Formats: sequence, C-alpha cells, structure tokens
Amino acid sequence: MSPLAETITILGAGAMGSALAAPAADNGHEVRLWGTWLDDELLDAVDQGRPHPRTGVPLDPRVKTYRSGQLAQALDGATYVVLSVSSEGLLDVLRKAAGHLRPGQVLAVTTKGFVRLDHRIVTLPHAVTAVLRETAPDGSLDLPLVAIGGPCKANEVAARRPTASVHACGAPGATRRSHALFATEAYAVEESDDLIGVEVAAALKNVYAIALGICQGLAEHGGEPYHDLQAAAFACAVTEMVRLAGPLGGRAETVTGLAGVGDLEVTALSGRNRVYGTRIGAGESPDEALRAMQAAGQTVEGVPAAQLARELVDQLIRSGALDDWSGLPLLRQIADLLGGQEPYGGPQELAAAFARAALPARTAAEY
Amino acid sequence: MSPLAETITILGAGAMGSALAAPAADNGHEVRLWGTWLDDELLDAVDQGRPHPRTGVPLDPRVKTYRSGQLAQALDGATYVVLSVSSEGLLDVLRKAAGHLRPGQVLAVTTKGFVRLDHRIVTLPHAVTAVLRETAPDGSLDLPLVAIGGPCKANEVAARRPTASVHACGAPGATRRSHALFATEAYAVEESDDLIGVEVAAALKNVYAIALGICQGLAEHGGEPYHDLQAAAFACAVTEMVRLAGPLGGRAETVTGLAGVGDLEVTALSGRNRVYGTRIGAGESPDEALRAMQAAGQTVEGVPAAQLARELVDQLIRSGALDDWSGLPLLRQIADLLGGQEPYGGPQELAAAFARAALPARTAAEY
Repeated sequence: MSPLAETITILGAGAMGSALAAPAADNGHEVRLWGTWLDDELLDAVDQGRPHPRTGVPLDPRVKTYRSGQLAQALDGATYVVLSVSSEGLLDVLRKAAGHLRPGQVLAVTTKGFVRLDHRIVTLPHAVTAVLRETAPDGSLDLPLVAIGGPCKANEVAARRPTASVHACGAPGATRRSHALFATEAYAVEESDDLIGVEVAAALKNVYAIALGICQGLAEHGGEPYHDLQAAAFACAVTEMVRLAGPLGGRAETVTGLAGVGDLEVTALSGRNRVYGTRIGAGESPDEALRAMQAAGQTVEGVPAAQLARELVDQLIRSGALDDWSGLPLLRQIADLLGGQEPYGGPQELAAAFARAALPARTAAEY
Repeated sequence: MSPLAETITILGAGAMGSALAAPAADNGHEVRLWGTWLDDELLDAVDQGRPHPRTGVPLDPRVKTYRSGQLAQALDGATYVVLSVSSEGLLDVLRKAAGHLRPGQVLAVTTKGFVRLDHRIVTLPHAVTAVLRETAPDGSLDLPLVAIGGPCKANEVAARRPTASVHACGAPGATRRSHALFATEAYAVEESDDLIGVEVAAALKNVYAIALGICQGLAEHGGEPYHDLQAAAFACAVTEMVRLAGPLGGRAETVTGLAGVGDLEVTALSGRNRVYGTRIGAGESPDEALRAMQAAGQTVEGVPAAQLARELVDQLIRSGALDDWSGLPLLRQIADLLGGQEPYGGPQELAAAFARAALPARTAAEY
C-alpha cells in the first residue's frame, strides 16, 4: 500500500457497492466492503472467490469483507465512507452506522431517488443530512456529502470497462478527495458542485427510461420501429428534467451533461426500468408487467419514483416554486399510466398518448 | 382542397422529400414532388402505386409527381418550396431552380451538412443564400430559409408514425408558415429561430453517431456491453456540439433539445452512420468497413462530415473564434481515425482510445 493510501469503507455489498471497490483498490487504498443483513449470500459467494452474484465479476482479492455484525470494525479508522444500500434500507443502515462516523470523514452516497421525510418528498442526501443531525445535534457529524452519479453500470465498473462517473458535492475539497481516491484509467471522475442537479437527474431518469422502453415495446408489438417517438421522448425527458431541477436548486448543465443525458442513455440501453417499459409497450398492462418482474425477483425503481415525482411536483406547485404541470407532460403521462389514473388501453392507445405527451404541441399557442 | 390550401413543391424525390409530402398532403395542400435526373426509378415505383423504394411506404395518391424535365411546371405558383436533395447535388439543383423562384416564397431545406464554398467550410443554408444572391444580386430572392431538422426518420414520417421535427428560421413568420402547412397529429413542428444551432447539430450528429456505433461494435466483438462508454460518448458528443455551436452563432438549448439530443438519439438507434461505426468497433478497419458499405450502395454521411468538421474547427481556431481543439477530444478522435491520421489497431486499442477521448480527463488539472 502506498504511503498516501487511505481507508475506504463501503456500506452495502450489492452491485454498486462491490463494483466501486474495484477502482479504489486499483488505486492502492485499503477497501472494506460491509454487507447488510441481506447481503450474506453475496459475501459468501465473493469470499469463496466466485463472481459477485449481481455483477458477475469476482471481488478484487485486496478488498476485505465485513459481515453485518462487524459494522464498528468496518468503519474503524475509515477516512471515506460510501453508502451503497438500496433506498428502502439506506436510512436504517445510516442510523446504525452514524454512531461510528467521525468528523473529518467524507460520506458518499451511490443510492439515488426521492424519499418521504416528515411528509415531504426530498432527495436522499437531504434525508441523510437530517439523520446525521438527529445523531449529532451539535453539528459535529455534518460531513461533506458526495453524490455519486453518472452513466455507471455496476457490472461494467466491476469489470473495469470504461466508465464516466460524476461525484458531486457543495464542498470542492470533498470531490477532490473523491477524484484522488477513485479516478483510474477505466473509472473517470467528473467533479461537480451541483449535488441537487445530479440527484434530480438520477432519480428521474428511471421514470423516463420506462417511457423509452415503452417506445421499444411498441416496435416489438407492431413490428415497425418507433425510433422517432423514442428520440422525441428522450429529448422531452431531458427538457423536463431541466425544468424540475431548476426550482429544486439544480443546474441545467448538470442535466444536459453526463449526470442527466449520459445516465438516461445508459438506463435506456439496458436495465429493469427499460425492460418494464418494453413489456408495457408490447402489450402487457403496467400491473401485469410489474407482477411478472416481481415474480422474477426484479424491482423496478421507476415505478415508485414516478409517484414520488408526482408528489414532488405537486409540492413545488403548492409552494409556488413551479406554476403548474404544463411543462411536464411526459412525466404526468407516465405517472398517470403507472399509477392507474389512466387506464391501459393497449399499444395503439399508448402510442397516441405518448405522442401527445412527448411531441411539441400542435397548436403553436405561444404565437 | 380547403380554401386555405397552398401549393408546396418538394425538390428531390428521395426518402425525406417523399416523406414530407405526407403531412403536407394530410393538411389538404397541393403537394408536388419533383424528382432529379437521378430519381426516375423512385418516381416510376410510386407512380405505379408501389412503395417508395427508400421508405417502403407508397406515396400519398394526392401528391403529384414531376420528372426532372418539368422543373418549371413543378415550381409554377408554389408558395412554399422544400429542397430535399443530397448534399452533393443540392447546389446544382438550386441553381437550376433559382430562375423559377419568386419573392414571397418560403424556401426550406431538409439536407444537412457542412459544404465548401470559396475555400471556406459553411453550413448548407449559408451556401443556399449565396447561390440565391448569385442569381438575383438585387436581393429579390433573399427568401426566408427554413432548416428542417430534429429526430425524423423518413420512413417513419412517411408511415405517419409520431415524429417531432424542428423548423428553424431567423424570420418567425416563415416558421409559422411551416407550422401551419406541415404540423399534423403525427408530425409535430417545433418552431425555432436558431437556424445555425439546428444546422450544426444536424451536421455533427452523423459524425458522433459513428462513435456510438463503435461502442456497440465493441460489444459485438468482445461479447460484453460497453454501455457506460457509449453513454459517456453520447453526453460528450452533446457537450462538444454545444461548444462548436456557440462560436458559429448557435445556442446551447438547441443542441440540448430535439435538434441535437433528439437527433443524435435517433441517429444512434439506426442508420448507416451507426452501422458503419458498429463494423469498425467489431473489428473492420475504417477503410474496409467503408468499402463494404459502398459496395452495398450505402453512403456514410458522417465520413466526409468528419473531415469537413475538422477543417471547420481549424478555421474557427485561425479566426480566433475558438481557442484550440482541447474541448473537442471526441471529434478529433473520430476525425483522426476515419482520416487515417491514427492507424486502426483493432477493437482493444479503439476502446482505449475512445475512452481517453470521451471520458473526463483523469488529472483534474483545473483544480
């Protein structure tokens, strides 16, 4: 280990947690991978030298694994802590870990999405900060929080295929640390000070990827491509993400860069949200498609995210930060379809409804 | 025909020219489709009621066809003229047509790309304006020029599948005319005053689509996806197009909207530039791949466009409008590879070279 080596503890041994261990280990750091009470099977596999069940890639042998009971040991002496737990479990894990965190550490989060906190919809880092304040009301645990986003598939990061990530934090010193610790030839780190922009894009892209999947499903159904509609929906998604990021405090350039455009592209190329949309476009109702995927053990993050996004928009309208829904027709269309406010009428009706939502309005009312 | 019907003449009976006849005819206008001396076979097919050989869709029976010798008749009384000829033939056709154009007409162009004019690289509308000035030095033919862009595949437009187009012109009256004449439920028209932004994005997207194709080819070669690299290249392409549009007088929002992001997405989903890139990524040298496609009668617009774009960048640097190449690493990488300045070393080397170009630099030198 080099004299500049640090100790990085990754909480959560799922796909992204185990993947991020790769660039950190490649840079010569001590990397500790802690698994939650749900991760024992994953750690059993990698401890026996088998591929990680979620990425298909063996864990780097330099990485030390810790079981759920070893949280204190895993965090002892860590200088940089990564939270990489599913959004449902994240705040629980954080509450358990908070007592072992120390001033001077950097806390990074790979988990993305909106969560409900005290009857309000907030981004995950917002909730993380609130939990740290509960633990240390004196502010001693107000650690710099880094959101890790960008177009990163865990299996490609683990396999060291070229990946561009975005590490965002209001404090530039923290992203410099991120860059120094994680950037390798294969894993690039773009530093950003727009944590909100990264969070909003990362949460919404799962919702919009369902729409792009629907366009692909329409082609499967009818045998004819709907590439024009998919491309229009892609551009519409970017425009709507820009419109939502602004009132929340994020910047347009973040959404039109790696963290928005890039992440939406990779999510549309593969992943469960895309697959879910494809099933709907090809003829399954949203409920049927969801049941089929759940039966196969696959969660679809975009489904709850669509309803949280709807609540968030309503919240922004009530607070006066947003006028109305008129600039977000595609988001509304997806949320209505998945939430059952709009009945599923099959591919033909779906194509027409998504065209109305994603295409510029026919009446140029602004003139 | 409705009392508000106008006469629209489309010059060029290829894929996009014949496709655009559909929404115009659906709106009840008199649509005339004139074929160049190279289009006789295409017109033979549609005149006999067979599908258009390039789109697979029969021509709307309300559209009247005109052969190359009937240029004057085709243009007589037209109020809106669309130029839809390949970039090599466009200025020739325009010179022949110019004598039949009249003040008060709107001239629209679907053809995109950079061209050489008096030893300078310019966008096509620039060249069109110059030719009109040659014909009428008194300025009487300074017709408002509308660039038609956005994510539009001709076969989908012809088949009336949902499509969002962008019609751009400095004169708002001209795009209002475009909107009134062409917008249908299936074919949406977004009006824009940023003709340069639309042109630059439309010309460059063919070049960048080759890079996205290369990422797809790498997956075919190695059996493992390069989605992270493709998504990073996509976002990098958008950023570079913004950087080039600015010094030429275009706006970032145009590039990050339908005309840039949308058009790049549809070009990456299908089309010859994408296919060409895929062949290179999978193991053929750029020359081999080009020969194979030419043998199948397929031109790859992105190949000459890459070299014209290189000259354009050099021109901008010489004029001081751009500092240097440092903000355009992906464009340079593609131009060098296709132009032979960088030898083809096979998929492995290619992946590394494109990762260096498309990923954020490892050394965060800006800090």
